[in-house]
Order: sequence, then structure tokens, then C-alpha cells
Amino acid sequence: MSPGVTEPLSLAAARKLITGHACPLPGETLPLQDCLHRRPARNLLSAIPVPHFCQSTMDGYAINGGSMAGSKPPLELPVVGEIAAGCTEIVALAGGEAVRIMTGGSVPAGADRVIPFEWCREADGLVIIFRLGSKGSHIRQVGTDLRKGQLIIRQGEVIFPCHLHLLATSGMARIRVFARPSVLFVCTGSELVEKSPLPGQIISGNRALLHGLITEAGGNPGYLGAALDDTDQIAMKLQEAGQASIIITTGGMGPGKYDLMGEVLEKIGVQILYRSLQVRPGRATIFGVREQTMFFSLPGPPPAVQILFNELVRPAIFALQGKRGGPAKVRAILDQDIVSRKKGVLNLKNGITSVRSGLFCVRPAGLTEPSTATILIPGNRRLIRAGEKVTVHLH
Amino acid sequence: MSPGVTEPLSLAAARKLITGHACPLPGETLPLQDCLHRRPARNLLSAIPVPHFCQSTMDGYAINGGSMAGSKPPLELPVVGEIAAGCTEIVALAGGEAVRIMTGGSVPAGADRVIPFEWCREADGLVIIFRLGSKGSHIRQVGTDLRKGQLIIRQGEVIFPCHLHLLATSGMARIRVFARPSVLFVCTGSELVEKSPLPGQIISGNRALLHGLITEAGGNPGYLGAALDDTDQIAMKLQEAGQASIIITTGGMGPGKYDLMGEVLEKIGVQILYRSLQVRPGRATIFGVREQTMFFSLPGPPPAVQILFNELVRPAIFALQGKRGGPAKVRAILDQDIVSRKKGVLNLKNGITSVRSGLFCVRPAGLTEPSTATILIPGNRRLIRAGEKVTVHLH
Repeated sequence: MSPGVTEPLSLAAARKLITGHACPLPGETLPLQDCLHRRPARNLLSAIPVPHFCQSTMDGYAINGGSMAGSKPPLELPVVGEIAAGCTEIVALAGGEAVRIMTGGSVPAGADRVIPFEWCREADGLVIIFRLGSKGSHIRQVGTDLRKGQLIIRQGEVIFPCHLHLLATSGMARIRVFARPSVLFVCTGSELVEKSPLPGQIISGNRALLHGLITEAGGNPGYLGAALDDTDQIAMKLQEAGQASIIITTGGMGPGKYDLMGEVLEKIGVQILYRSLQVRPGRATIFGVREQTMFFSLPGPPPAVQILFNELVRPAIFALQGKRGGPAKVRAILDQDIVSRKKGVLNLKNGITSVRSGLFCVRPAGLTEPSTATILIPGNRRLIRAGEKVTVHLH
Repeated sequence: MSPGVTEPLSLAAARKLITGHACPLPGETLPLQDCLHRRPARNLLSAIPVPHFCQSTMDGYAINGGSMAGSKPPLELPVVGEIAAGCTEIVALAGGEAVRIMTGGSVPAGADRVIPFEWCREADGLVIIFRLGSKGSHIRQVGTDLRKGQLIIRQGEVIFPCHLHLLATSGMARIRVFARPSVLFVCTGSELVEKSPLPGQIISGNRALLHGLITEAGGNPGYLGAALDDTDQIAMKLQEAGQASIIITTGGMGPGKYDLMGEVLEKIGVQILYRSLQVRPGRATIFGVREQTMFFSLPGPPPAVQILFNELVRPAIFALQGKRGGPAKVRAILDQDIVSRKKGVLNLKNGITSVRSGLFCVRPAGLTEPSTATILIPGNRRLIRAGEKVTVHLH
């Protein structure tokens, strides 16, 4: 029997145990436009420098100012051509000549600066230049934005629009990202119905809650249905589930008569790694593994499901896509008194963060408010006063 | 000619003008599970109280403690039945009787409290109760989570998983949300190619960038393709676009020879409402309307596209889904010196926010970093030192 089965774990130890069991999924190659918010399966480097040629940043004249050392403006030069943006003709520039060039145009070999239109006057094939500027001025040199081989995004990080821009510009039309973890879930409880609840029955909120949480975390949610408080029925649903990276159950936890999940998981051959955490909610919650599948048995109440999902299941979904570690941990100033019902173990509450004149603040979330952080209330504190600092985990 | 056409507008005035032209789209009715991150087309209220019956929060015995006033525990009561979670039979409870009840079970009429198993011993059809607790203890009363008619989420706000949970539990399987705005875009520039750029040509990053930004904002992106720097070609692409809430162009702006967008928009009958803002980037950017379609002409450089999208286009997409107002504006502590290239007008920079011991901090974003805020640098400052407070708009 592993120590996790008997001893309640700390939250941090539980997360470490869980992410240690997450083996990154295989990759899949997708067109760039389908990769928003996915995670790359390898470090992505720029294949070319950006820009890959010297670009004019102004409409003006490209000249070789170096060849005119000693001459003082105004200077009169013949205009020997024009380079529009997109022009791929190779224009030769000799010292003492000027080429008209548009913003984005490829600065010709031989030119060492671009003189903006505002500093010039052109007439009859000649341009008079009133200011020379400095060497390199109004030219974006090769590799200014990205050097060849520069890291654009690290394996496992989330792909945001700015990455899409750089990946596209550096020539990547398709990239390899981690597959989305398949996350199946069952809601257990004989009281659960799909609609028209009689007294004694309820419509499960966990189905919709988990569908949303799994989707937000980058998983592929699959609902296996509701199950009565019956070992065989739950076990059958889990057995029929097929391949999944993660299987979650809600309900059927705790010390009472109908608390079944430990029994069910043992019955279907799941190796249970913990049955209890030193954290509230979490006194009764199970994590186990069977082959490549991770099993989470969460309590029934949706606020507890949400907190334990954020703290433990989401890091597992991330780890399956190459991103290790837990939520970012920061200090915030409590905006209102907070009381925990019981002392003894770490208490977690859904929180709403805000910023007030440079201070990062937090308060407990109401039921209808989307939480943005988890507030950690140490086990030795029953009351924390407004104005004190607390630790929060950012979602 | 409207004043906006001649006078450069402030950022705030531009946003007000834009969102004032956004007419919320019609609604569509969708299954709850398809509504994550959508915006409801009306205020959504709970149709039933939650819970809609008195629920036991423990495994224990439901009794009428009030009827035993004067008696001191231990008390011995006959156990006349059992109420499991999900049990819908109506169990009658007389004073002086006990009913075994499980967590989530419907507390019978006549009972005024639930005594947890830990405080009792049952044998031979009788339960001995060692502690009476107080009236109402271990019972979740009707409407504890949500009263009937209580607001779950306001029209136009984003639907998060916690809302899905409450909407489901309160009996809503389908809800009415605003349609996603159709946001079409064209990237202009004769230098743009789809792949294998020659010197002088580039692969547009704006295509991928805008696809991502529009998707994140809740719009439905549609790429109309790249267009040469040619009035007729761009105008034709925009004419062929068909119905859209918003049409965005990138490039073709500014004072140079090939800066065409003003001409194009006038040609196709767009009423131009501004051509310039008192903000950098934004000296050359157009907003106009034609019938129900809003037109944004953004500059070519992707960082400018991103900033102006965040500040002006995203609020338009939100307003089309019933959400008025701009980004949240807060003060943050600058983490490193920041220098703006030019004084005179408000300068905007992509920023990365972080929290350090209760302080909300910001620094300029590198090119490969997904920005989380826009830093506002007042026009009268060229250098702002680390440690000073600056205003930021949160994404």
C-alpha cells in the first residue's frame, strides 16, 4: 500500500504526484489558424530572419551617404529608379545616385540610408536632398524583429495571437501541437435528473460546470452520463468509457453510507494514490491511475468541484500538453474580512481579484461571479481581516 | 463633413464614437454546453429556487427537535424510515420520531434539523441521540444558493463555467445568446505573399494575428485575402465581402504615395468618421460606417494592429454583443524605465503585467510575449522611470 493511500497529502504534494503521472500526449500537425490557444509539441524557432531583407521604414530616397563624405547638403542626385513595396527587381545603386523607395520596399545594395520625402524635393529626374540623416537611418535591418533560429514560443506554452503573427511571418504555415487530452466525466448521485426535478431530485450543475472547465483548460470534454449511487452501475460506466487521458467523477465521496467511489475504483483496477488531502475542500477526494489514464474522484458540491479542478485537474491537463507546474502563486491584499468555517487544515475559497491604485486585491467570489483566483487560508487562521495579505493562486 | 474627418480624435472619443455605432446583433438559442464564453441576449434569472427543497447536508437523522423542548439528550427515538439522496417518496414525520436521511436527501415535512450519524447510535429500530444541535442545523433551506428570480448573469456579460452550472441547475437547458459578429478582413500591400517570399516580399503576419484576435474577442473571423496596393483591387475585395458586422483592413495608411485606404473607402460609399487619432499608433487610422457595417482601416505594422484592435475593434465586437464600455483602466507600477520615441500625443505600448508582493506591476512586452495590458504613456512624458505609476488598460 503506497503511503498516499493512508496519509492525507498536502495540496502541493498532491499536485506534484499528479503532474508526475502525466505523460505528454503525442503531437498533431495543424494549420496555423487552428492553433490559437493550443500548445506546441516542441520549441518553435524562426526559420528565417524577420525581416529577411533590409526594409525602408519611410517613403523617400535610398542613397549611399557614405560615398558623399565631405559634401554638405543640399545635394542634387539623379533618381535612377523606383522601388515600391513588394518590388523584387534587383536595383543597382551607385554612389551619387538616388532611388525612390516606398515604405516596406527592399533597400538596394549600396544604399546606406533612406532620406524621407519631407527632407527632399524632386523635379525633372533629380532630387535635392536637404538633410542627410545618419547611416542606417529609416532602414529596418535584416533580423530586427527575429533572428534566424530565435525562439518564438517554447514547447508547452499557450499560443496567443502574437505568436501566430510571428510564426506566420517566419514561414510556418503548419505547426506541431500536443493533442488535446480527452477528459471524460460521470456525475454520480441518485438525486440527479436531466430535467423537471421532483422534490428530492436536482439537475446536476456539475455536468455543465465540468464541460466548461475542461474546455477552458484545453481538454476535450466527454460526458458519460449520470449514475445512480450504485457501485456496479458506476463501475460499468467507467469500464465502457474507453480510452481517455483523464476520467473525473463527481459525488459518491465522503464517509457516509452511499459514498462509493473508493470501492468502484478498486473494483475496476485503479491504483489509488491518495484518498484524502490536508485541504478543505479535499478531505474526501481520490486520485488514482490505471495504465495511461488518471482518475479523479471529486466531491459533489459544485464549488468544491471547481476549486479542486482548478488546483489539481487543470495542472494535469496542462502537464499532458507539456506544461509542468501549478498555478501562479502571488500575494494579494484582502478586500474584506474572511472567515473559515473550520481551522486545522488549509482552506481554499474562490476569489475575485482586482487592482486598486497599483495594489493587487482579492475578495471571496459570490456564487454567480466567475472566480479569477483561489484564496489560500492557512489552517491556523479562522479570521483574516481586510487589509491583510493572503496568498492566492491565479487561474 | 463631420468634425471627426478633420480633427484627430482622442482615444476615448474614438471608442465612444465606435461603440455608439454598434447595434447589438440578434440573438440565437443554443444548448447550454455551446454557450461557454458567449454573451446572453437578456438578463438570465433563476426560474426555480436552488435548492428547490430542503436538503440534508449530512448523513444522519431528521427529527423534530422543537417537539422535544425540555427533554435533554440522550434521547431514544424510533426510526420510521430512510430517505436516500434522490428519494421522492413523501415521508411523514411525527414529533418523537426519527428518519434516517442521507446527504442531499429531501428533509421531510415536520423535521426541523438533521442530527449527524456521529452524534447518534442506532440499534434495533431505535436511535439514541447524544446531541440535539440547533434548529435548522445541517439543512440547506430552499433558495440558499439562488432565490427564484435571482439574477444569474446580466445581458452582454461573458458566460463562464460557474454560470453554466447555475443555469443548468436552475433548469435552463437552452439559452438565448447574441450571435457572433462576423468580422471580415483584408491585408493590403503589394509586398504580401502567402509563402516563399523573395527579397522585397513578406508573408503577412496580420492574417494570422487578426484571425487570433477576432476569435479571442468572440467574433467570427473571415479572411478576404491579400490585396495589392491598388484602389480598384481593394475596393473590389471589400464590395464582394457581403454582409459583415465589421470589416478590417491593414496597411495602405499614412501620407505616402501608396496610402490608399481613405480613397478606397470613399469610393465604396463608406461614411468616414475619423481619419486620425491623437494617439500613437493611430496617427493614420480610419473608422467609418456603411449601413450596418463598421469599417476599420488599421496601419500595416502588426504591433500597431494589435494595439488598435485591443483599444478600438475589440470594444466594437463586445458592443455588438450587448457589452458597452472599454477595457478596464487601472494604475500599475512600472517595472522598468520606459522611453517613448516621440512626445506630443498619448503613446500606447503592449505591456506584461505581474504581481509582486501585493503590488500590480507592468513592463513593456517583448515581441514574442503575449501582452496582457496596454500601457498609456502621456504625451508630455518622454521617459518614465521604474517605480512610477502608469495607467494601463487590461485586455
